[in-house]
Amino acid sequence: MAGHNDKPKAVVLLSGGLDSTTCLALAADQGYECYALTVLYGQRHRAELQAAQRVAAALGVQEHLQMSVNLDAVGGSALTADLEVPKDRDETAMGQGVPITYVPARNTVFLSLALAWAETLEAEHVFIGVNALDYSGYPDCRPEFIMAFENLAALATKMGTEQGRRLKVHAPLIKLSKAQIIQKGVQLGVDYGLTLSCYDPGPDGEPCWSCDSCLLRNKGFAEAGLDDPLLSV
Amino acid sequence: MAGHNDKPKAVVLLSGGLDSTTCLALAADQGYECYALTVLYGQRHRAELQAAQRVAAALGVQEHLQMSVNLDAVGGSALTADLEVPKDRDETAMGQGVPITYVPARNTVFLSLALAWAETLEAEHVFIGVNALDYSGYPDCRPEFIMAFENLAALATKMGTEQGRRLKVHAPLIKLSKAQIIQKGVQLGVDYGLTLSCYDPGPDGEPCWSCDSCLLRNKGFAEAGLDDPLLSV
Repeated sequence: MAGHNDKPKAVVLLSGGLDSTTCLALAADQGYECYALTVLYGQRHRAELQAAQRVAAALGVQEHLQMSVNLDAVGGSALTADLEVPKDRDETAMGQGVPITYVPARNTVFLSLALAWAETLEAEHVFIGVNALDYSGYPDCRPEFIMAFENLAALATKMGTEQGRRLKVHAPLIKLSKAQIIQKGVQLGVDYGLTLSCYDPGPDGEPCWSCDSCLLRNKGFAEAGLDDPLLSV
Repeated sequence: MAGHNDKPKAVVLLSGGLDSTTCLALAADQGYECYALTVLYGQRHRAELQAAQRVAAALGVQEHLQMSVNLDAVGGSALTADLEVPKDRDETAMGQGVPITYVPARNTVFLSLALAWAETLEAEHVFIGVNALDYSGYPDCRPEFIMAFENLAALATKMGTEQGRRLKVHAPLIKLSKAQIIQKGVQLGVDYGLTLSCYDPGPDGEPCWSCDSCLLRNKGFAEAGLDDPLLSV
C-alpha cells in the first residue's frame, strides 16, 4: 500500500552496520518510504543502537522503531553469550563451517519482527542486508532462505489472506562482494563513518579491527580502492 | 538429539492457556523431554507468566525459559495495543474475518524464537498448541502455515545444513475442537484451574468470561460435559 506521498512503504532492517546501511540507502534510492527497524538482541546493544540511530537520521527514514528480544537467553553464540569472538582468522578459517558468531535463527527472528511491523503498516516490502558471499557460513543468509521466508509470510499474515497481496523480501546485497557493496553505497552518498561493523566493539563503540566482521570490512575497502572513514576518526 | 535420559528433546511453546497447556501435557505423555518457552509480548505479561509458571511446575518441565519481545511496539492488535477487546460476540461474529485480537505475525515470531532455542539445545522438535477449528480466523494457525515454517527452518539453521536433521513442528491440537482438547487434557490429568485463557484478565488474573477466548473456553467445557475448575475458584 502506498504511503502518504504515494511511495510504496518498506520496512528496512537496520543494524547500523555497513551492509544494512547500504541496504537502506538502496531502498531509499529506489523510491521506497523507509521504516527502519533495529532489533536489539545481544551484548552490543548500546554501540549498535547508536550506529543505527546515526544512520537512520542521516538517511532520513520515515520512522525508526527499536525492538528488543532477549535472544541471549538461548545462548550458543559469541555475539550474545559469554563466548570469545574469534580474532585474526584468515579466509580459510572463516570459510569453514558455521562460525561461533552465528546467532541461532537470527535472521528468521529479524524477518518475523519485520513482518509484524509490515503487516501493521500495510507495507508489502521488507529489505534485509544479508550477503551470501561474505556471509562466513551463516545458513540464514542464502537466497533459498529468503524465498522460504516469503512463502511463509504469504501464509502467516492477514495480508497474505487477502487476494493479490504478497510480502516481497528484498535482499539486494545478497550476491555482491563487500567491495561492490561499499562502491554502491559510496555512489549513493553513504557516510560509512557512521556505521559499526565490529562484533566486539570497545566501550565507546570503537572497532576491534581483528574480528571476522572487521577483517571483511577492511578487505572490502581495500578491494574497492577506498579508505574506510572509520580509520580516520 | 537425545536428552540426558535418552528422551528426545522438545521445545514447547507455553502461554499458560488451555491449548498450550494441553499441548505440553501431550508432548510429555509422548515421551519428550520438554523445554517450555514462554514468550512475553504484550499487556497481559504478569497474568500470563504466572499461569505459565504454574503449569510448567505442575507438569515438571526440564527447563522453563521466558523470552520478552516488545511486539506491542508495532501495534495493530487489541492484545498488545490500546484497542478494545471485543466482548460477548456470537459465533457468527467470531467467524468473520481476522479479529482485532490477532497479533501481527505472532506465531511466526513465536516459532522463530522456539527455533533459536531448539538449535541451541540441539532439539529436533517444537510443539505449538495452535488450533485451526476454534482459531477465530487467525491466518497463522493453519496447517499450511506450520508446513511452511518447517520448510523455512530446514534452510534457516545450522541444524538444517547438517545431513539428515530437520526440525519437526508438532501441532497436535490443530484439528481438534475445544471440547476434544479439554477431554484429552483431562485424560492426561491436566488441572485446567492452573491455566489462563482470557484476552482481558482482571488485575489478579481473573477471567472476564466475555472475550472470544473465554467464550470458546466456556463452550468447550460445556460440549465436553465437564465443569471448568476456574469457575469454582
